[in-house]
Amino acid sequence: MKPLSDLHCEACDINAKCLEPTEVVSLLSHLDGWEVIDESGIQKLKRKFLTKNYTQTMLLVNEVAKLAESANHHPQLIVDYSSLTVVWWSHKIKGLHKNDFIMAAKTSALS
Amino acid sequence: MKPLSDLHCEACDINAKCLEPTEVVSLLSHLDGWEVIDESGIQKLKRKFLTKNYTQTMLLVNEVAKLAESANHHPQLIVDYSSLTVVWWSHKIKGLHKNDFIMAAKTSALS
Repeated sequence: MKPLSDLHCEACDINAKCLEPTEVVSLLSHLDGWEVIDESGIQKLKRKFLTKNYTQTMLLVNEVAKLAESANHHPQLIVDYSSLTVVWWSHKIKGLHKNDFIMAAKTSALS
Repeated sequence: MKPLSDLHCEACDINAKCLEPTEVVSLLSHLDGWEVIDESGIQKLKRKFLTKNYTQTMLLVNEVAKLAESANHHPQLIVDYSSLTVVWWSHKIKGLHKNDFIMAAKTSALS
């Protein structure tokens, strides 16, 4: 398989299925530092990136936002002084799609 | 009292006391849309700002970040597609200081 960060998001409509548990485990093994969390029954991909200071944090925030706009897929960002937590999931299907793993890999490549 | 948004943060050292409950209630009455929350025993000020789209969200994120840097006091920011949630508290004293109410008022003035 090509590296996830080299893939592109595919159209995800409201009828798409969430990934099967085995697919989640398999895709997660290609990512470093990401974990799958469950928030109110919705599976999400989460990683906390540590930075040196607020300037570095805000640079990363804006890089991730630019990436999100380019893919028209937007994560939740939790911004603290010297960390940025990024949470990906697919709102339309209320869970995880392969797109989320692709975006997670692309996010890691920015840090 | 002058509007909170016209005041400036004062130095807050680790020995400063958290606000008394009556002071919290009094200062909160000067803010629109903010609530006091308790997270793991730490009182914080929280408000969710709704926006029209991601571009507007990111503009507001960067304005708040600029404000935070200018005061050397930094909130937690939770960035979603069309909302920005801002959470202020004083890390050094693990609770609320008058500075947090001043910063909340200044944040509201940006939106």
